[in-house]
Parts: sequence; structure tokens; C-alpha cells
Amino acid sequence: MAYKLTYFDLAARGEPARLIFAAANVKFVDNRIKMPDWPALKPTLEWGQVPILQFGDKTLTQSKAIYRYLARKFKLSGTDEWESSQCDELVDATSDLVDEFVKFVFKEPDPVKQAEGKKNFITTTLPTFLGRINKRQMDNDGPWLVGKSMTWADIVVAEMLRQMSAATDPTALNGYPHVRKMIDAVFAHPNIKQYVDASRPS
Amino acid sequence: MAYKLTYFDLAARGEPARLIFAAANVKFVDNRIKMPDWPALKPTLEWGQVPILQFGDKTLTQSKAIYRYLARKFKLSGTDEWESSQCDELVDATSDLVDEFVKFVFKEPDPVKQAEGKKNFITTTLPTFLGRINKRQMDNDGPWLVGKSMTWADIVVAEMLRQMSAATDPTALNGYPHVRKMIDAVFAHPNIKQYVDASRPS
Repeated sequence: MAYKLTYFDLAARGEPARLIFAAANVKFVDNRIKMPDWPALKPTLEWGQVPILQFGDKTLTQSKAIYRYLARKFKLSGTDEWESSQCDELVDATSDLVDEFVKFVFKEPDPVKQAEGKKNFITTTLPTFLGRINKRQMDNDGPWLVGKSMTWADIVVAEMLRQMSAATDPTALNGYPHVRKMIDAVFAHPNIKQYVDASRPS
Repeated sequence: MAYKLTYFDLAARGEPARLIFAAANVKFVDNRIKMPDWPALKPTLEWGQVPILQFGDKTLTQSKAIYRYLARKFKLSGTDEWESSQCDELVDATSDLVDEFVKFVFKEPDPVKQAEGKKNFITTTLPTFLGRINKRQMDNDGPWLVGKSMTWADIVVAEMLRQMSAATDPTALNGYPHVRKMIDAVFAHPNIKQYVDASRPS
């Protein structure tokens, strides 16, 4: 079964899928669209958006649906339906945070409002999330957010926090040692480390 | 196993969970918070938000994680991982549409901007979504969006379209007969009809 992931040559919402492939050591076609090619590609897509995952005659859209499908296939979504649902909860909470980041920081056109949005994100929105994740992870043994081994929730949370802290406040994780431990564990995973060193988009 | 769903006495993001319980004919505690009680409840919740689903010593937050958990338990998420992922895709696409509705119509404080947002939603955003769903459903035999029987994707899409068309343009579904057929089939389901007639929030 040959998987093909189509996304821009960016981390953003494509990277967690690449990291899940890497963690599972599953080869895939990492189709990175060049920006000049996007206007012609977009209208050919059912939902007009990427990432998309293709295999056989099937196409799956929606980033979280893609991550979840791969995670289930590759046994990275916990040991039972309850653990799987905890992954879903954490990923959707992270997605809410990313939406706030995109709305108030990334896409805000007014530079004054963007500065305000960034300040509020750094001082309130992000710490609130980190405090909750830190507590959740502290209440679990070991470095992982759900159960006793790495899940796609760890991968998605780690990667999106990496991206958002880099874009707003690289010191944001100071004071959340359990979150730090989880992120470090994800990126120390040998397969993930190998992928990141070789192929992570700039 | 006694399930307790906590949400406001509103349809909104709580109603799809109630409809999934109804479809499966599973009894649950339908805990509808009175607005004056919310300020005291909110800080006691792990994520400060509802809906939450509780059973035994467990609490699950995030509306879609709740719907999906119940759908899997009650065999309403398709017959295999591919059908399950198609449900995920459709629900997340609907969620994106709801986010647009909330941002540009429901929460927009400026009445002029709200009127513009509503017009754009009615003339562009909603028809684009409906056209895609209509095509998807047309390509499938029978009234359902995924596979050969009702899934939680039908329930979520039908209920959120019902809410959003009522709030913007009650004629919005005209011209999308396959979507109409799916929605009618969901609300004609005997268990769902019984719940709606007796207990749907106003």
C-alpha cells in the first residue's frame, strides 16, 4: 500500500502526518507542493484544501482525520477506545489553540492588533493550555500524555507547540517541565529524530 | 454504565451527542446547566468548557471526541477504519463551517459587519459546503453520507445544518436534494424523532 501525502513544503498542519509516518517507519510519497503550482491544483481537490492523504483509489482530507487514520493503522492511538478518545480530546484542544494562534497572530493583518494578539497569546492563552497539559501529563506515569507509550496525541501536541512557541515565545515552555519532557521524548524517538534531521521543512 | 452529558439547555454543540444517544436508544443523564450556575461550574472543569461526558470515574471533554466515543461504542461509525475516517473527515469539515458561522455571524459584535458576514455565509460559504456534501452523498447509494447505514457523520451534519440554516436562511437547502434526503432520513429515524418531539431544546 503506497501512501501519498500532499501538502505545502512547510511544517504547519502537514508535519504531524509526516512525523506519524516517521514514528511508524512507514515509507510514503512526501508530495510537497510548490506555491506557484497551488492555484492550478486547488480547484481539482474535492474540498479545495490540503493536506490530503491518498492511497489506492482513496483520498482523505482534513488534517486530524488523516493523523487519526494513520495512527490507528500504525498502532499509535492507545490500547483501547478510552485511550483513543483521550488522544482525540487532546488533539482537538490543541487544534483550538492553533485556531487562536492563526486568528489572532498569524492571520491578523493589522500590526497593532497583531502585537496585542501575540501578547495575549503569550501571556494568557498559551500558558492556560500548557498548565492543563502539564497537569495531565504529570498525572500520568512516564513522559507520555496518554497511557504508557507514545501516541499520535504526543506527536501532534509536541509538534504544534514547537511551531507556536517558535513563532511567539521560544521560552514559553519554561515552567512546564512535564510538557518539556514529553516534547523531548517525542523528538528523541530514533525514527522521528532521523526524519527531522534529514527532511523537516525549514 | 451510566453516562452523564453536561451542556447548556441549548442545541448548539451539545445536541449531536444527545441525538447519538437517542439513535442508539441508550439512556443517559441529560444534565442541562442553567446559565446562572455556569460561572461557578466553569472553574471546576479541567478545560473550563462543556460539553463534557462523564461515566464511572472518567470525564471526556471536546464535543467531537464525545460524539466519536459514543458513536464507536454504539456502532454508529461505519463498518471499517476507512468508513470511520470518512465520518471524521465530514465532521471536521462541518466543524470548520460551524467555526465560520460562529466567527462571522454568531459572535460578530458589529451589526454592519455581522450583516455582511451573514450575507457572505448564505451566498458563498454555505452553498460551497452544501454542493460538496450533496455530491458526496449523491455518489453514495441511499440516503447516507458514508456506507450503507446511518453514522454519526449523518447525525452531526444534519443537526448542524439544521441549526445554521435556521439562523441564517431557512431556504438554504433548496437545490441540494441529496442533502435534504439525508437530513430527512436522520430526523425520520424513529428513536431520533421520539427524542426530538419530546426533548429537543428550544
